[in-house]
Parts: sequence; structure tokens; C-alpha cells
Amino acid sequence: RRRPVREVLFFPSLPSCTEKLLAEAAELGAAARPCPCPLPQGDSSLSRLLRCLLSARRSLEICLFAFSSPQLGLAVQLLHRRGVRVRVVTDAQYMSVNGSQIGLLRHAGIQVRHNQDGGFMHHKFAIVDRRLLITGSLNWTTQAIQNNRENVLVVEDAEYVKPFLDEFEKIWEEYNPINFLFFFPK
Amino acid sequence: RRRPVREVLFFPSLPSCTEKLLAEAAELGAAARPCPCPLPQGDSSLSRLLRCLLSARRSLEICLFAFSSPQLGLAVQLLHRRGVRVRVVTDAQYMSVNGSQIGLLRHAGIQVRHNQDGGFMHHKFAIVDRRLLITGSLNWTTQAIQNNRENVLVVEDAEYVKPFLDEFEKIWEEYNPINFLFFFPK
Repeated sequence: RRRPVREVLFFPSLPSCTEKLLAEAAELGAAARPCPCPLPQGDSSLSRLLRCLLSARRSLEICLFAFSSPQLGLAVQLLHRRGVRVRVVTDAQYMSVNGSQIGLLRHAGIQVRHNQDGGFMHHKFAIVDRRLLITGSLNWTTQAIQNNRENVLVVEDAEYVKPFLDEFEKIWEEYNPINFLFFFPK
Repeated sequence: RRRPVREVLFFPSLPSCTEKLLAEAAELGAAARPCPCPLPQGDSSLSRLLRCLLSARRSLEICLFAFSSPQLGLAVQLLHRRGVRVRVVTDAQYMSVNGSQIGLLRHAGIQVRHNQDGGFMHHKFAIVDRRLLITGSLNWTTQAIQNNRENVLVVEDAEYVKPFLDEFEKIWEEYNPINFLFFFPK
């Protein structure tokens, strides 16, 4: 029996090229040609995070305060095209900032919901195939990946995954747009 | 043998009075008089987080982007007075905002270090007695505790605690003020 995944990733990530990883995932296992860019091809916190995400085969729940990383955006779109059921929850105030991936994800047909109340939707977690929890301090932004001190835990353990799945479903229903109240100034 | 602590806390926290908890911790186990305030006395995510912290007997490492919660500040000061070795790492840009606890902690004689570089020190974790990891999306601010969607994991498992301890020691040394460079405009 395979040992459960247990990983701790720290950021800032070392620079690394993620083209090969994304290209191989797009063609599901085919070996991609090496990218001619000058970035190192080795492993990094970003590439390990990408690998966890790209392991999704059935479902991906994402609950993120800020999402602007192009590489992580591409990975999520790729999973959606592969038929993985992707659902995204995000924060209303941050989803439309410059460089946000949220518009691109919606344009690609991915379901996105957001808060409409006062507090921030400040979670930063994802759940792969209802099995693998990815959570920590990291927003999925290039600033955070390349410049900040951040951590991400990867936990394959129902005792931690289950409450996060329940929290996701609760928020998903609460942010259902049919429940929205629209206030118009008089 | 005691089962390792494994907890998931979600926020916003239900309102609850934390006076009794803090008073009992100050007198190490003595039963405090009930507080006359109208807040519920029951358990909440905040009170459970406080309880984890107050369980410290020897050491507490804190690595926090933003720290302004008066209750959590009191708890940390109380541990320091009890003789627990408290060390705090925080973000330079946020430590002096209105309501920050950092000045009070320093005034109380607690060692605090901060970054001096460009990226944010965005971690939000604490380690109790080198044994218990507390980590998640939550900054220790009243806004986050009372208004935001947040999560905190409590993990008593050396496989997760060890890399966070190593990360703390690395940052602690890197932020040692004797290594600071001071630039003066010409």
C-alpha cells in the first residue's frame, strides 16, 4: 500500500521552469520536449505544488483569497479541460484586481463563487479528488510564490480533509448566487 | 498513551468570553470567578486556539504576518511571565500599524525579529513546546477572528513540526538585527 502524501513546502520558491510539467499534464504522460528557456528544470516548491494539483483525476475544490499566478491558472484550466470537476471560491474584493486569474477561469467555463459580505474570504486551500488537502499561508500569486515567506502543507488524511470538504460545501452553498441580495441606492 | 492533538478550527469564531481562560492560565489552574460580561462562556475557535497556546510550558515560537488581537497578545505575555521562552517573528510593514501587539510584546521584554527585505513575511504559524504546530490562513487580528473565513490546523506530529521549527530557526537567524544593513540616502 502506498504511503499517504505528507509534504511541507516553503516559499519563496526557487525559480524553475514549469513548461514541461504543464505540457506533459496536457498530454497526460507524454514526454514533452525540453523548454528552451534559461530557468532551471529542477524541482521547486512551485513545481511540487503544481504536481499535487495536476494529480487530480475527478475533482478539485479551490478556496482562495487571491489567485493571480499564470502557471497555477493554466494548471486549473488544464484540469477542467481534462474533465476534472473544478469549483472555485474566492474573495469578491480581490477577484477583479489586475492580473487576477478569476476572469480567465470563468471565461473557460469553470464555476466560481464569491462572498458578498463584509469579512474577507481569506482561506487558501485546495482539495484534490476529495483525498488530498493543500493548505497554508500562500495565496496563489506570483508575488507570494517568488517573494514572500510562505508555507503550504499537503496532507492526505481524512481526519483533516473531511472538515475542509465540509467547510467548502458550506461556503459553496452560502455563496450560491441565487441567494444574493442586491442593494440599490435610492 | 495520550492520542496526539489533531484539530481543525474554522473562523469567524463564535463570540465567546475568554476572561476565565486567561485568568485561570495566569494563576496556573486556579478556578477563576466567572466574568460578568454578556458574552457566551462556551467553547469557540478562538478559545480553542487560546487553549492550545496556553498549554505551552517551555517554548513558543510565533511567526506571524499581522498580530493585533488583544486576547492572543495577553496570552503570549502571560506565557512569557510564566517563564516560557517566547520568540516572535513578524513583518516589518505590519508590525507598527494601529493596534499592533508587537510594541506591547517588546515592551514586556519578549524578543521580536522582523524582515528587512522586499517580500512579505506572510507565515501564520506558532509552535508550542517544539511539539505542537498551529498553522493556517489566520492572522492573529480581531478582524480575522471575528469577520473573515479562515482556517487553523493544530498538528502534533514531528513530521510536520520539524520542518516548521527548522524554518523558524532559519528565519530567526536571517532576521538577526546584527545582520541588518542600514542604507542612508546620499
